[in-house]
Amino acid sequence: MSNSLIVQKYGGTSLGSLERIEYVADRIAKARKTGIDIVIVVSAMAGETDKLLKMAHRLSKNPERREIDLLLSSGERISAALLALALQNRGIPALSMTGRQIGLQTDSTHTRARIINIDAKRARKMLKKNHVIVVAGFQGINEEGDVTTLGRGGSDTSAVALAVALGARQCEIYTDVDGVYTADPRVVPQARKLDVVSYDEMLEMASLGAKVLQIRCVEFAHKFKMPLIVKSSFKEYEEDKGTLICEEDPKMEQPVVSGIMCDKNQAKITLKEVPDQPGIVANIFEPLAKASISVDMIIQNVSDQGHTDLSFTLQREELDEAMVIMNKVAKKIHATQVGANAKIAKISIVGAGMRSHSGVAAQIFKTLSSHNINILMISTSEIKVSCIVKQEYSKLAVNALHDAFELQKKVAKKKTAKK
Amino acid sequence: MSNSLIVQKYGGTSLGSLERIEYVADRIAKARKTGIDIVIVVSAMAGETDKLLKMAHRLSKNPERREIDLLLSSGERISAALLALALQNRGIPALSMTGRQIGLQTDSTHTRARIINIDAKRARKMLKKNHVIVVAGFQGINEEGDVTTLGRGGSDTSAVALAVALGARQCEIYTDVDGVYTADPRVVPQARKLDVVSYDEMLEMASLGAKVLQIRCVEFAHKFKMPLIVKSSFKEYEEDKGTLICEEDPKMEQPVVSGIMCDKNQAKITLKEVPDQPGIVANIFEPLAKASISVDMIIQNVSDQGHTDLSFTLQREELDEAMVIMNKVAKKIHATQVGANAKIAKISIVGAGMRSHSGVAAQIFKTLSSHNINILMISTSEIKVSCIVKQEYSKLAVNALHDAFELQKKVAKKKTAKK
Repeated sequence: MSNSLIVQKYGGTSLGSLERIEYVADRIAKARKTGIDIVIVVSAMAGETDKLLKMAHRLSKNPERREIDLLLSSGERISAALLALALQNRGIPALSMTGRQIGLQTDSTHTRARIINIDAKRARKMLKKNHVIVVAGFQGINEEGDVTTLGRGGSDTSAVALAVALGARQCEIYTDVDGVYTADPRVVPQARKLDVVSYDEMLEMASLGAKVLQIRCVEFAHKFKMPLIVKSSFKEYEEDKGTLICEEDPKMEQPVVSGIMCDKNQAKITLKEVPDQPGIVANIFEPLAKASISVDMIIQNVSDQGHTDLSFTLQREELDEAMVIMNKVAKKIHATQVGANAKIAKISIVGAGMRSHSGVAAQIFKTLSSHNINILMISTSEIKVSCIVKQEYSKLAVNALHDAFELQKKVAKKKTAKK
Repeated sequence: MSNSLIVQKYGGTSLGSLERIEYVADRIAKARKTGIDIVIVVSAMAGETDKLLKMAHRLSKNPERREIDLLLSSGERISAALLALALQNRGIPALSMTGRQIGLQTDSTHTRARIINIDAKRARKMLKKNHVIVVAGFQGINEEGDVTTLGRGGSDTSAVALAVALGARQCEIYTDVDGVYTADPRVVPQARKLDVVSYDEMLEMASLGAKVLQIRCVEFAHKFKMPLIVKSSFKEYEEDKGTLICEEDPKMEQPVVSGIMCDKNQAKITLKEVPDQPGIVANIFEPLAKASISVDMIIQNVSDQGHTDLSFTLQREELDEAMVIMNKVAKKIHATQVGANAKIAKISIVGAGMRSHSGVAAQIFKTLSSHNINILMISTSEIKVSCIVKQEYSKLAVNALHDAFELQKKVAKKKTAKK
């Protein structure tokens, strides 16, 4: 591990204009003055990737993924070259590198390739020569030498993988928010920025719809214990510490609840009077899996006269396709009715401290019921409780729970634990 | 040589919008129906390269050429992927390839690299599998694996080099004009499109300001005797034959004059009363060469009392820099005066037939004098006569000469020569 090396990743909004690129270059210049080595990973300028994708879809009904990858990879290359130029103009020796040049090898699953290896030989050489390296994120090459991309948010994954490969001290993810919050500040005005979040909590939050980090990037960081820092590129370098995502420190007291997520992009399907026979559930969910539709929560009522009602939730954009499949399934298994509800929201409470504290679920139920909010479905994990409620109550529910768990207050850390 | 393989190159205006890309894809689909194998070389969409360059120059006063190359190469990659998608959408198996993937190796002179080798192994393999290959023009990689570009118009050179490497039957350059004309049709309404031009003539025309083809591309084609065809991508595939650029056929009668060029981007510098001493000319032109300023015509008057006047022409955009140098030189060599004239034009008459026909120069002088146009300077080569005239006469001069040499009429070829 190099104690002086930091990998910084700048997202699309951080590089959205030439002015923004100049600003980022100034920040990097400042960070460099502190004596650290820096590798930068960049996304495409905001809007570029969508623009290119739109063109592809106008030209082809079913665009081949290999071509999409070549097309989209251009965006990050442009950002990398422009930022390298801006750094050079400040007298900083800088060098852009593409996915291939950084040695990022992937499998051949175009548009969502997995990283196989990073042979960062050339990057190491240039770091020794005191260069800032500006890497085009999101892309690699496969065995055949074709350009591949890592999927949406892939630049975060590039950054973490590169930090691991180069043995960096930490990986800083710069974005348009200044960290991870106890709740979405647009929904909960009292939401507070968290100083530290554990990988486990962040993984739950990311999978529950917190958009600040991709699940895959957090998984990668977790696997290799690479400290991640989420910070705003719109604030001065020294001004803000962002949120640190790292391993739980067993010596430190964990807050019971770290954050509340709300995912409105949910829908529920209910099958009425499903015959309660062995294997019937497989009949329902196999066709969905085949269509690559992910099911989230599932509830099956207690059987009544050999029949049961079955409900499950899924992402809203997959509702139409799922309903077509369910209507066929319902005929086949003789369910009497298929209903859909797109007006629901999933409220989730995440906290590593739940492991050692009971009573979180009870507190949730009490809080929601005191506001007359009905809970439609519940699911729990070791460090999470999720409830489905009517969408119209989502804002009220999140704010009520944020108050009830006093998330606006910073948890005082025990002094003894700090030793 | 593969008799069924054709390389087609499409320029930026031919790919300037998604509609244009669709149109080009339709043309390629039609061409493919005639049973030929096709390799396409594309430029960046019109305006893209300039847009990227402008951004680079806004971010850096003196942008490093390596970064410029990575930046600019994106434009052709985008075009290649988009055209491949449009072809695939028509049911044509198509594959984009970057400069690296086509195996185009260059030296390391960034922004104007020279081609060292093309290892088109993968392209050959994919051609055998009946694919249309869409190559990102203008770019290659150097020994280090860095992206290089071939300079302005480099996609034409890519196309010819690829045609040579793959042993294509011919290389077709598609652009927004439908061929090579006897004169610029905007200046001479009677200008006629030429069916055939020899490499030598085309080289003279290109160096005299005919923008339809880059000198380097014609040189490359000449060297390897690759037939070049210039055609419009705005007309139907079958509609127009364009202009064929090939070797002179000694059996065929050559037209005495093939075309008239007019270059208004000229300026003249005159040094008065230069001491007529040995070595004095070197004193004048060495500093210009050091500043990379190309001098075109030079005239030295007959010496009068140990002094002579010396005039030379150069590209107008280099006039200011040259004048600064010449004012210093004049002091040093005790010339009495330095004058500049930016209001001149160079009229050039090109024709392979001049080799065997005398009287062309005489005809030019007679024609211009009959219109009271004074000739300021003259230079000749084996197949060219150039005259400098006042710029205000340029249009008149070109039209008068076009008439005098009857260029609007097609030269009848001797029937016997065709055998």
